[in-house]
Amino acid sequence: MNILIDGMGGDNSPVDVIKGAMLAAKQIDETISIIGPKERICTLLAAEGCQADDTADVEALGYVPFTNKDGKAFRVYPASDIITNNEAPAMAVRKHKDSTIVRGISLVKSGEADIFLSAGSTGALLTGSLLILGRIKGVKRPGIATFFPKIGQNDTMLIVDVGASVDPKPEYLLQFGIMGSIFVNLVKGVENPAVMMLNVGAEAEKGDEVHKEAYRLLMDSSLNFLGNVEGRDVPFGPCDVVVTDGFAGNIFLKTAEGVALVIMKTIKQKLTETTAAKLGALLAKNKLYELKSELNYSEEGGAPILGVNGAVLKVHGNSKAEDFCNAILKAVPYVNHNVTRRIAEAILANKELQGAQNE
Amino acid sequence: MNILIDGMGGDNSPVDVIKGAMLAAKQIDETISIIGPKERICTLLAAEGCQADDTADVEALGYVPFTNKDGKAFRVYPASDIITNNEAPAMAVRKHKDSTIVRGISLVKSGEADIFLSAGSTGALLTGSLLILGRIKGVKRPGIATFFPKIGQNDTMLIVDVGASVDPKPEYLLQFGIMGSIFVNLVKGVENPAVMMLNVGAEAEKGDEVHKEAYRLLMDSSLNFLGNVEGRDVPFGPCDVVVTDGFAGNIFLKTAEGVALVIMKTIKQKLTETTAAKLGALLAKNKLYELKSELNYSEEGGAPILGVNGAVLKVHGNSKAEDFCNAILKAVPYVNHNVTRRIAEAILANKELQGAQNE
Repeated sequence: MNILIDGMGGDNSPVDVIKGAMLAAKQIDETISIIGPKERICTLLAAEGCQADDTADVEALGYVPFTNKDGKAFRVYPASDIITNNEAPAMAVRKHKDSTIVRGISLVKSGEADIFLSAGSTGALLTGSLLILGRIKGVKRPGIATFFPKIGQNDTMLIVDVGASVDPKPEYLLQFGIMGSIFVNLVKGVENPAVMMLNVGAEAEKGDEVHKEAYRLLMDSSLNFLGNVEGRDVPFGPCDVVVTDGFAGNIFLKTAEGVALVIMKTIKQKLTETTAAKLGALLAKNKLYELKSELNYSEEGGAPILGVNGAVLKVHGNSKAEDFCNAILKAVPYVNHNVTRRIAEAILANKELQGAQNE
Repeated sequence: MNILIDGMGGDNSPVDVIKGAMLAAKQIDETISIIGPKERICTLLAAEGCQADDTADVEALGYVPFTNKDGKAFRVYPASDIITNNEAPAMAVRKHKDSTIVRGISLVKSGEADIFLSAGSTGALLTGSLLILGRIKGVKRPGIATFFPKIGQNDTMLIVDVGASVDPKPEYLLQFGIMGSIFVNLVKGVENPAVMMLNVGAEAEKGDEVHKEAYRLLMDSSLNFLGNVEGRDVPFGPCDVVVTDGFAGNIFLKTAEGVALVIMKTIKQKLTETTAAKLGALLAKNKLYELKSELNYSEEGGAPILGVNGAVLKVHGNSKAEDFCNAILKAVPYVNHNVTRRIAEAILANKELQGAQNE
């Protein structure tokens, strides 16, 4: 398996990407490839004790092969350009042909890489995936899926979509439910995952016309659909898959993240304000650390773009080395379970989507 | 001033409504009126030591006058019917003519009451306000506004709309900004309030077409508009007014509430798991209580329906006596500042809304 990661995506690239790749290599035997400016990435790999294969025909291979001290394989794929978060995605993807994102996705398309991970621009990653890989036949709109912790349950639920669709239609929401269920079933082994839809109230007739119609479609589908769920109840983890559109999903995910951050910051501050509180914090230290680690509301591992013809994972923009490592580790089962093909099969087999296939 | 409160709205009515009214009467001299089933409400008032005026002509007055031990005035307005949360609002308002909500809003319309507060169905309260009071001339859509704590800053910001508009248009969002600014200026005394719009990214071109156009309208307006804000940043309190549509606003508010609840629950649980943690919690007790009280993400006081021709405040459905008291206290400046009239004047004077006035 060849896992390809964008060397230049995110706030802490390229250093943390390289360090994350090193950490991941301790746990898996797959080839880990980094795409980015050749000299820069090669220098960083060398600094981590990796050895380039001087006998390799880099021109013919299309990459520089490396080996670390444990004999694990790395590759550096050259890409000289970068797409920034400030660029309009569609324009950027067309303009920056030699960017890490465009070239990275193209390597998945050609089969050279099995999966591409990037902490770069979500919009460019999505647009690039759509333009280069295309949608799976029958899929109307891809959805970005991310795991969200069920606090206190040592478990997660999948939220889909968290940013791909800002102008939702009922059929998109149904398809997010189908793709999310398949993904959770394959990757987590959950049989018949419980699906709910994020809405402004629990009753069937809540929300705008799109959500009312989506409720009917989900209810009539073969999914294990339990109904609507309000933002107040999602954090308690009532189901396996939460269906939402990209706008509301983004608001949900980022609000949860922001509230958790502001609470942890406030706890930290308050517990240093008095001597008694300081002492108390010291005694409760282990439990407070546990809380902090459970409250990781930023995307865990990578967020796959479900519904495109290839494996692409978005990694959180402020990821550090451990986060990149985690994302690389999560990529393995994603490839092994062949999520893309299984979604394609399910969409083809799904009677509710017959209409969509004729597009 | 006659402050009218729905005796039957919310999970803890009527007992907590009455207790809340009693608490509020200790702090203000205004007449506090309760609307609901006459016998039941009168019995509860009597149980709180209030004395009915036996000489009053209840038929002619339309209410039963009471006085408490401190000489504060209360009234009981009779309404035998209740609208539940499970009923479709438009139908319910038309059907239940003698409900607390319909009769309560009608008493504002007639001028008998200066403001109506209810912890009952938001939809019925909104629909009833629209049908009975009507929109302020030029206002396209009312917005429900609620204060949200700026954690650690001992301050709040206003979020508008949190549930009135599920199918937003750009002009609605502009008007929410205008109405919210006026409200914050009048009630909190903030000069030129800083306004931001909840969106999926900070850049101008983020979000769907509605938000892109709303961004342009807000930027071109005379408001102190600082741009878009993401869900992750709102909890840190970057502005005075957050403009959003009712769908995203509801998701934002309820997610914040749910995450705060799940975190407080987890802290409580974790800090009892070991002896050291228990002792630590005991020592840090005061600071942990402070945290809990700051983290009140459920609507504070009451959430006014801005843009209708009269003062109507939605109170949180799970309010307890202190919350009802708080809402009654917040009603006083709302009436004193004549928020409704000031919004009407501002909308009339606002050049950006000239088009809307010709509807």
